[in-house]
Amino acid sequence: MKHVHYTKVGLEEPSEDGVKDTKIRWVISKKDGAENFAMRVFEIQPGGHTPLHQHDWEHEIFVLEGNGIAKDKEKQESFKQGDIFFIPPMEWHQFANEGDETLKIICLIPYKK
Amino acid sequence: MKHVHYTKVGLEEPSEDGVKDTKIRWVISKKDGAENFAMRVFEIQPGGHTPLHQHDWEHEIFVLEGNGIAKDKEKQESFKQGDIFFIPPMEWHQFANEGDETLKIICLIPYKK
Repeated sequence: MKHVHYTKVGLEEPSEDGVKDTKIRWVISKKDGAENFAMRVFEIQPGGHTPLHQHDWEHEIFVLEGNGIAKDKEKQESFKQGDIFFIPPMEWHQFANEGDETLKIICLIPYKK
Repeated sequence: MKHVHYTKVGLEEPSEDGVKDTKIRWVISKKDGAENFAMRVFEIQPGGHTPLHQHDWEHEIFVLEGNGIAKDKEKQESFKQGDIFFIPPMEWHQFANEGDETLKIICLIPYKK
């Protein structure tokens, strides 16, 4: 069993283009023996955002702290602590922090088989 | 995209034996098109617990609110808000609320292929 406070897991720079003022913690991953899916926590500073992108895997998201705006290519909606998102494969999406506190979201992705 | 506050998803009685004063919300599941893994939120009342059990799939857990005790057959350790757990397949585990507030944990499981 792995048991740790999420803030003890290293805060890394995401490698992806289009990210602004955002860091990531891979709190549960293959390194821990997780073969099916990974849990990450994103920390997005005010004015920061994830990329507007799409990919062939889904996201399962729980908003841990703060609030923000979820966008696709046509529309946007605000969200707050306790909201969940399921983003199916190939849907465009972006998460932006337009508030004045750090936005933290738990975001899970599958590992490909 | 599914986007909803987790408290808007129905609070159900778990079907399993050995559960006490615990309810579950299936916040993201196959009903939403999630094919690889499901996100549930457990709400465990003071004095309540999940079963002491084992199974051939893993758990990925984030402690959302409250604090509690994680047990296996030999030992126990306390946990608090913001702790994460990875419980590999076949490890014995139980989560108990020995505090005086509702314990809420996000717990993800894979769907079998």
